[in-house]
Amino acid sequence: MRAATGKRLDAAVLAATGMVGQRYVSMLSNHPYFRLAAVTGQSSVGKKYGEAVPGLSLPISDGARGLRVKATSADALGDVDLVFSPLPTDAAKTLEPELVKSGYNVITDASPHRMDRLVPLMIPEVNPSHLELVKYQKRGGWKGSLVATPNCTAAGLALVLKPIHDALRIRRIIVSTMQAVSGAGYPGVPSLDILDNVIPYIKDEEEKVETEPLKMLGSLGRGGVVPARFEIGAMVHRVSTTDGHLESLYLETEERFDPPRVARLLAAFRGEPQRLRLPTAPAAPIIISDDDARPQPRLDRYAGTVPGMSVVVGRVRKGLDPRSGRLTLLSHNTIRGAAGSTILTAELMYRKGVLN
Amino acid sequence: MRAATGKRLDAAVLAATGMVGQRYVSMLSNHPYFRLAAVTGQSSVGKKYGEAVPGLSLPISDGARGLRVKATSADALGDVDLVFSPLPTDAAKTLEPELVKSGYNVITDASPHRMDRLVPLMIPEVNPSHLELVKYQKRGGWKGSLVATPNCTAAGLALVLKPIHDALRIRRIIVSTMQAVSGAGYPGVPSLDILDNVIPYIKDEEEKVETEPLKMLGSLGRGGVVPARFEIGAMVHRVSTTDGHLESLYLETEERFDPPRVARLLAAFRGEPQRLRLPTAPAAPIIISDDDARPQPRLDRYAGTVPGMSVVVGRVRKGLDPRSGRLTLLSHNTIRGAAGSTILTAELMYRKGVLN
Amino acid sequence: MRAATGKRLDAAVLAATGMVGQRYVSMLSNHPYFRLAAVTGQSSVGKKYGEAVPGLSLPISDGARGLRVKATSADALGDVDLVFSPLPTDAAKTLEPELVKSGYNVITDASPHRMDRLVPLMIPEVNPSHLELVKYQKRGGWKGSLVATPNCTAAGLALVLKPIHDALRIRRIIVSTMQAVSGAGYPGVPSLDILDNVIPYIKDEEEKVETEPLKMLGSLGRGGVVPARFEIGAMVHRVSTTDGHLESLYLETEERFDPPRVARLLAAFRGEPQRLRLPTAPAAPIIISDDDARPQPRLDRYAGTVPGMSVVVGRVRKGLDPRSGRLTLLSHNTIRGAAGSTILTAELMYRKGVLN
Amino acid sequence: MRAATGKRLDAAVLAATGMVGQRYVSMLSNHPYFRLAAVTGQSSVGKKYGEAVPGLSLPISDGARGLRVKATSADALGDVDLVFSPLPTDAAKTLEPELVKSGYNVITDASPHRMDRLVPLMIPEVNPSHLELVKYQKRGGWKGSLVATPNCTAAGLALVLKPIHDALRIRRIIVSTMQAVSGAGYPGVPSLDILDNVIPYIKDEEEKVETEPLKMLGSLGRGGVVPARFEIGAMVHRVSTTDGHLESLYLETEERFDPPRVARLLAAFRGEPQRLRLPTAPAAPIIISDDDARPQPRLDRYAGTVPGMSVVVGRVRKGLDPRSGRLTLLSHNTIRGAAGSTILTAELMYRKGVLN
Repeated sequence: MRAATGKRLDAAVLAATGMVGQRYVSMLSNHPYFRLAAVTGQSSVGKKYGEAVPGLSLPISDGARGLRVKATSADALGDVDLVFSPLPTDAAKTLEPELVKSGYNVITDASPHRMDRLVPLMIPEVNPSHLELVKYQKRGGWKGSLVATPNCTAAGLALVLKPIHDALRIRRIIVSTMQAVSGAGYPGVPSLDILDNVIPYIKDEEEKVETEPLKMLGSLGRGGVVPARFEIGAMVHRVSTTDGHLESLYLETEERFDPPRVARLLAAFRGEPQRLRLPTAPAAPIIISDDDARPQPRLDRYAGTVPGMSVVVGRVRKGLDPRSGRLTLLSHNTIRGAAGSTILTAELMYRKGVLN
Repeated sequence: MRAATGKRLDAAVLAATGMVGQRYVSMLSNHPYFRLAAVTGQSSVGKKYGEAVPGLSLPISDGARGLRVKATSADALGDVDLVFSPLPTDAAKTLEPELVKSGYNVITDASPHRMDRLVPLMIPEVNPSHLELVKYQKRGGWKGSLVATPNCTAAGLALVLKPIHDALRIRRIIVSTMQAVSGAGYPGVPSLDILDNVIPYIKDEEEKVETEPLKMLGSLGRGGVVPARFEIGAMVHRVSTTDGHLESLYLETEERFDPPRVARLLAAFRGEPQRLRLPTAPAAPIIISDDDARPQPRLDRYAGTVPGMSVVVGRVRKGLDPRSGRLTLLSHNTIRGAAGSTILTAELMYRKGVLN
Repeated sequence: MRAATGKRLDAAVLAATGMVGQRYVSMLSNHPYFRLAAVTGQSSVGKKYGEAVPGLSLPISDGARGLRVKATSADALGDVDLVFSPLPTDAAKTLEPELVKSGYNVITDASPHRMDRLVPLMIPEVNPSHLELVKYQKRGGWKGSLVATPNCTAAGLALVLKPIHDALRIRRIIVSTMQAVSGAGYPGVPSLDILDNVIPYIKDEEEKVETEPLKMLGSLGRGGVVPARFEIGAMVHRVSTTDGHLESLYLETEERFDPPRVARLLAAFRGEPQRLRLPTAPAAPIIISDDDARPQPRLDRYAGTVPGMSVVVGRVRKGLDPRSGRLTLLSHNTIRGAAGSTILTAELMYRKGVLN
Repeated sequence: MRAATGKRLDAAVLAATGMVGQRYVSMLSNHPYFRLAAVTGQSSVGKKYGEAVPGLSLPISDGARGLRVKATSADALGDVDLVFSPLPTDAAKTLEPELVKSGYNVITDASPHRMDRLVPLMIPEVNPSHLELVKYQKRGGWKGSLVATPNCTAAGLALVLKPIHDALRIRRIIVSTMQAVSGAGYPGVPSLDILDNVIPYIKDEEEKVETEPLKMLGSLGRGGVVPARFEIGAMVHRVSTTDGHLESLYLETEERFDPPRVARLLAAFRGEPQRLRLPTAPAAPIIISDDDARPQPRLDRYAGTVPGMSVVVGRVRKGLDPRSGRLTLLSHNTIRGAAGSTILTAELMYRKGVLN
């Protein structure tokens, strides 16, 4: 088992020329646990990666720049230890199970398999124990493994709900989101749709926001994860920002919601990645702002010791009764909400010996 | 009493060079009930109105263009039948009571006196009967009168809540707003604060949104208005749009919330202004969009037969249980949320003979 | 010949569900010369037009709403007197000649045939005489006819250059453009490309801006149009505006460039459409703003008695020597720069009996 | 003389809570040559700096955070070796000469004294020799010294013109700018003025852009600087970007303008700061992009080894004749166009022993 010996593992990034794919390539340039060994694409197969993404503005290593883009298939991938998959939904649906059958360890940002019974849906600070499900996958005869990262809005939400639920037991959440255009990928949202505008709708998004956090905050049972037993009502909006999803929450809790106490709980929260000092773990997963007008996407999207990995929370305040409260959070959607969290999950798997 | 004879009344617009003031001047150019007789300003006293607002992009009459800007004071105003006041908060606080003491009928968009016991807070489709309070003012020895228009966010909200509350009795509302920069006046929000950004805070706004609709939906009692007895929890945000406040609502009701029925209720709603065919009354105060992705500020802000006077509602859908629901509304903040509603109130007062 | 009798002609709009197509349908709803008889599309063939463009925000007639969308082909079009073509470049290249061969009178916004020898490139105020080329087409045995509207940036530019060139003889123009995203159609420019950004490049645009105005300002000779003999150097940019192309010009002229005189020339300019009082002709094709900070896209894009058909010019000022000058113009790119100018050309053809 | 011994000099930043002031404080946190010893402000005198700018998003040292804000006056400043002045124009006009009279070495971003005969107007890569003027100041009996940084648009322009002028001798430039809102400071441009808009005017800007580069590219003569003898015609625009001024140039040169050669010249350009390896000197002051659609403000504003200190140039291409050409440049207006260049100038002065 390579991980135990501290040897770097070979990693592939699928759809590496896409927006989240580029984040992966940048974050995996010079990574202590993983060596970027393969990148795949669609229209640019055969080109050097550096030529396939000529306008790339994120920093990447020369090694990454020189990799030849491969086709996205089990045949083409070659011998790698793990596969990062920011594939589009339709492609992910069929291709990821194929890769797992071929023996690959796949960690995916795509939605089709997130709610599958044996697939852990991971934010490493929230539910590290859910990685146990990979053992069930093995017992079930899977050749490879499949681990999922939640929807970009659900990621920041679950992280903030975790310490609150632990302390106050949440009964219900009403969440209203203001999401950045990068959440729709590239080309994504046409500029004519969003300049001087807000769109109060994102296809299938509310369903994800209402279910995925419950799985993440659930507990491991025999047949898989028993979801947490509170309710989430979501109202999602696309706004004219480039990066950073803002979410305003109205929370109802079993225990008294004391704003200063909740702010302290959130600021003090640390998870397994912090204890293990994983390379992509920010010192604090949640940062509290005491500026009345924060968090804001443009000012706070790169907050934290690992840029984009900390969620910023502000305006922690009372609700309409003592057992309810309100707050606003800001989470970088392609980092904490995608590539960053997925790499953090991979780091946790590496350290726990799951990627053998 | 002039109104009875159909004679046009002389109207003054305070702070007429400001953003809402310009709306008034435009909407009062060639008005069938009111003649724009005076405009006031601060730095431009003595100038012709047309020269005081050189970059004006709204259409105004030549008569308006030629009016000399007066100082904003009881002494300078002269003989007018009613006064439209979009004064800033601090100025309104002291100046409006002075004008009333001097015998003027003042209709104000400013906040300081909205919750005063004897001041009706009007959206003419919602609470026409509250104009009765003007009689109490007279009985109380007021020389003039004072009538208020609600906060720009509360205006659209109260209009949409009215038919729902009548039919289903509301228990609680959680409302999340995405408000246009024009709501902060001019110069208002610095561009550096809002480009590629959202600000989850507007000073004093949540308090207004949580209380004003309850007064509007309340009933006239002996001592004034008895507010409606449900709760509103607000989370407000400033976004990068020029005009049009978007509000997403989570509603809890006593009766079953059946989305198609609620949509029909809203579309069918008509008020006193529609029955009286007031000049500024839109054919339908609420327009239902069945496009999943509407309403949107840029596409819907000028909806309706009187541009900007209809609120557009979309995404009427279920909540987490049968007695709750969700919807999104869009209301033009300087028209339905200010000048337009105030002129509509003045028209109702004119027709009811209140402006005598 | 129908036109002589004042009978309305039947018109078809190709690609009618696209962005410029929607403008046509709106502007042809209740047109005095033309009856909208057919609309074509691609993915929506067979649907009612009103259903094919559900989110349409422009006003259209009920008749238009009920038209069945046809395929875009000579076979499907049926019996119409003229065809408006805002087809994409590639489709226009082959399809327009086919339609002409089938006997249709086609007026196109597309670029492929604009510089063809026998095709008049029309802004009706600039070069009404060029419609003579249609006679040459007939003599050359064409069954139908083909008339073109220039590039959206070249349209406003040619209109402003016309009176200046007539009076001062232009030697050279350096023009820098700031173009709206609607110029790229829908979905067009991805929001991720333009939020908080400028793109100093639009494919093939500079070539068009540098040649098309010279054809329009040229004179009819035996073999076609002899282009005007000055030079245009263009530097084009895409900016974060929805509608309205802004162009700043540095001009060198044979005669002395006296800014007040040039401003007067531009303001006084009238063309054949104004003399004939064509339905879509604005009272003044060019409006001069004396506000230092105008024209501006958001404030001036709908200037004029026919919204969007007047070009607004401001900042007419000196250059570096007496025979040079500077100015800025703003032209609505999908109206004056496309559908509006094309309909105006059709109106001129109708009145001149060219559409027989 | 401290500089010779390598001792750090004490520096003050005036107007340190303003937008450019904040850049200074951030860039001077942990600077090898300068120790931030004093900050001044207006409304926040007496507060700790960290509390005076609560929403600060730039990184600053704890030392800076703890400094007490002083009044902006010679009396309050105390004993510092140099003073960075991003004062507003009016304040700079009177205050900077007073500080010089009191013996301070002032380096200013303000405009009033830029064109003064004895004041060097510095971009260290362009005209390091102009620092000689400080000697003339001393000979003239000045107690302190005054050195200026150019206008933010002129800074990037002069840097790019320098290698071209040296090689091809420029005859004339027509420059069209698209400037970010941060160029107007904070609160600066109201959002209502710039959302979905372009403003083709910035007060006094064209005059500065047309004169300052000529002084910087001029040669030292007896009476001061003899300006370069070419002409600049400027057309300036404010666009909806946060940071980064884009400038498109049409250049006429004495020598043949060969685009590939010009691109090589620009890419190869190095100045005194690069030779001396000054701390704030980027490896290359000019970076050439060969992407057709670059430079772009959002992607290129932080280009270079010292973020924001390199100007990115793209689209180097032919003009209308062999001795003319075109290009587009992007320069970070508050770094290369203000605080960054000024600190670089201070570093050059430190190393040359001018700050003694």
